[in-house]
Amino acid sequence: MQLDHLGIAVENLDAALRAYGPLASGAASTPEVVGGQDVRVSFLPLGATHLEFLEPTKPDSPVGRFLARRGPGLHHVAFAVPNVDAALASIRERGGRLIDDRSRPGARGRRVGFAHPSAFLGSLVEFVEGP
Amino acid sequence: MQLDHLGIAVENLDAALRAYGPLASGAASTPEVVGGQDVRVSFLPLGATHLEFLEPTKPDSPVGRFLARRGPGLHHVAFAVPNVDAALASIRERGGRLIDDRSRPGARGRRVGFAHPSAFLGSLVEFVEGP
Repeated sequence: MQLDHLGIAVENLDAALRAYGPLASGAASTPEVVGGQDVRVSFLPLGATHLEFLEPTKPDSPVGRFLARRGPGLHHVAFAVPNVDAALASIRERGGRLIDDRSRPGARGRRVGFAHPSAFLGSLVEFVEGP
Repeated sequence: MQLDHLGIAVENLDAALRAYGPLASGAASTPEVVGGQDVRVSFLPLGATHLEFLEPTKPDSPVGRFLARRGPGLHHVAFAVPNVDAALASIRERGGRLIDDRSRPGARGRRVGFAHPSAFLGSLVEFVEGP
C-alpha cells in the first residue's frame, strides 16, 4: 500500500503553508472546503506523498474539537487503496471499529473512509480511493 | 524533500506490527533499541516511505512520557535530507526552536536531528540523513 498523505490539524492554513512550504517538493493545492466536515484543507506535495493541512471552519467540528482537546499537530494517516469500501470491510471483518461504515466524498473529488482510532492502536487512519 | 517516515508511538511493538502489517508493502525491520532514547523501534515499508513504530523501554523516556500524556498515536514526521546539520541550521536561521542543536546517531545507523514542535506549529519534525 502507499501513503497517500499525512493529515496535520492547524489553527491557520496560511501559517502552516508558510512553515512547511520550504520542506515541500512543489506548490500547495488551492484550499478547498470539504463538504460536511467543516474543514478547509490544502495539500503540499512531498515526493510520492503529501501533507494535508486541516483548518476547521468552526470550533464545533471534528478538527475544531481535536484542536481544542490536543492542540495543533499530527491528525491522521491516509493510505491509498483501489477500493475504500473493500478496505473498510476488511477492517470490520477483523473486528476493527469504523467511523465511516461506507465510503463518502472527500477532498480532491476522491472517495474516502475513516477507521476508528481503536482499530489502529490510537491512530486515526483514512483510506483514499485512487488516484 | 521526501517523507522518510511517519513515527507512531505504541505500547507494544508486536501488537503494532500485527495491526499495521496488512497495510505495509513489505516486511518489518528487525526491532532495534535506539541508544540514549530508551526506545525500541521497527520500520514497516509503505511504498516510497515507512511507518516507524516506537515502543518505550522504560516509562521515564521521551516516548514513555508521550504515551503517559497523550496515549498511543502519531508521534513525529521525518523528512529525508542530504545534511541534517544544514537542515537544523536553516530552521534556527528562521527563528525556529530546536531539540537537537546538532545531528546525532539515530535508528538504522543514520544521522538524525529533531526540531522543537513549536517550529512546525505543534508537530514534532525529524530530519534524517540519506539514505
